[in-house]
Amino acid sequence: MNQAIGVIDSGVGGLTVAHELMRQLPKEKLLYVGDTLRCPYGPRSEQEVKRFTWEMVNFLLEKKIKMLVVACNTATAFTLNELQEHLDIPVIGVINPGARAAINATKNMHIGVIGTDGTIRSKAYPEALLNIHSEIHINALACPLFVPLVEKGILQGETTLQIVSETLEPMKKNNHIDTLILGCTHYPLIKDTIQQVIGDHVSIISSSEETARESSAILEYHEILCKDDRIPYHQFYTTGELATFKKITQRIFQSSEDKVQTVVIEHATIT
Amino acid sequence: MNQAIGVIDSGVGGLTVAHELMRQLPKEKLLYVGDTLRCPYGPRSEQEVKRFTWEMVNFLLEKKIKMLVVACNTATAFTLNELQEHLDIPVIGVINPGARAAINATKNMHIGVIGTDGTIRSKAYPEALLNIHSEIHINALACPLFVPLVEKGILQGETTLQIVSETLEPMKKNNHIDTLILGCTHYPLIKDTIQQVIGDHVSIISSSEETARESSAILEYHEILCKDDRIPYHQFYTTGELATFKKITQRIFQSSEDKVQTVVIEHATIT
Repeated sequence: MNQAIGVIDSGVGGLTVAHELMRQLPKEKLLYVGDTLRCPYGPRSEQEVKRFTWEMVNFLLEKKIKMLVVACNTATAFTLNELQEHLDIPVIGVINPGARAAINATKNMHIGVIGTDGTIRSKAYPEALLNIHSEIHINALACPLFVPLVEKGILQGETTLQIVSETLEPMKKNNHIDTLILGCTHYPLIKDTIQQVIGDHVSIISSSEETARESSAILEYHEILCKDDRIPYHQFYTTGELATFKKITQRIFQSSEDKVQTVVIEHATIT
Repeated sequence: MNQAIGVIDSGVGGLTVAHELMRQLPKEKLLYVGDTLRCPYGPRSEQEVKRFTWEMVNFLLEKKIKMLVVACNTATAFTLNELQEHLDIPVIGVINPGARAAINATKNMHIGVIGTDGTIRSKAYPEALLNIHSEIHINALACPLFVPLVEKGILQGETTLQIVSETLEPMKKNNHIDTLILGCTHYPLIKDTIQQVIGDHVSIISSSEETARESSAILEYHEILCKDDRIPYHQFYTTGELATFKKITQRIFQSSEDKVQTVVIEHATIT
């Protein structure tokens, strides 16, 4: 099955998922859309997030994809059920894989979740966690400044440390949590600073790795793994400015220089 | 969906999978059958393994199960495809989850696999690994003495160390591997000794944890997670001697004493 896996995100955050998909499923071709122009999705209404998400999905469906990965927590929170219901290909979100990994990691059953306003408002994480485990205590916090920071490419330094420290202050006061879910795919890009602020005793869960692993399981379960041994070429689209998108792609993929060579980045108009 | 998850194994090895399922999916009820009487499956013919496996499956189907976990590598190697084809419930084996976790863990692409004669003979692991990643180098070794050792409850000490050292000698000579798959669910019970012999630089992959995680993903994907918050009672069956089976169950579940209270162990005649 040589069709591509479709990956959508509000911007560059989903690139952490794409990177993991390329690492764990090196035979699979990716088609990525980042809606950088209209990022962040976090403060938007459910209705608006749904409309934007469907626009990205329709863009990819026209190019034929065999599976869809919703690599944006806000889009997952508001549209996953609807997408799963309407599409005849497997659809995977980032929330359940993260929730499962956190349940696997926690020892004291106290889990923190940070995400955008929209994701935290949706209560999608508490729902996913309590669906599986009734005795989990959840401490959720919206971090509205993190996405704009990452989209601007400010991934470290004084400003980042200051914003992360101030934002996580209410969560630090509650020092019960032993596990923290990065409930936004942008956050792995500032993971080091988050770890520094929250402390080394807290395990940080990035749903990117987990989502890639489950994508592999679902592809195999549906018998649609790519059998072709040729190195795939990936097509990444952004609705916004090309330069920043390219810069962040290169930073994320810096550990695997050869991977960068296989990615073609273009501008897309999806509305 | 309050039906149980069915778990089958040639003996006590699958208890490591059951334990992980109980930890990661605490709301789910388990029905377990261990064919201790006819264990080990490793040296048996494909035909015989298939017949025994179907006998366990039919025993569980009569009691109604919503998903089947084939918690035995030998049974997975020889019957997974057939079971997936014939049953109308999701069927999960232990080989693909282990393969995926190993690909996720390896850095130098050299992966070792140890298992029973049957599993190694079937080449199921090389197939699963190369299906996903063409550039993996695989070093596979049959360890026919490990299962009888574990089934007797000899999980540590001089004899264990000696047998593990002698058996793994050919694999130690090839010191390229950075990841070792325990391709038999009995092996996690002697994991410490295996780690001691193979060296700390090698990451050991136990498919038990991975299989439980994927079971959780598949249950959610099919929307058949149990919604009931009451503590489930689990029913474990052995075709062999009750005393050893109980002893090993207690040893595996020793870290979670409360779990032991929820397990009822009985004898079963499945032929």
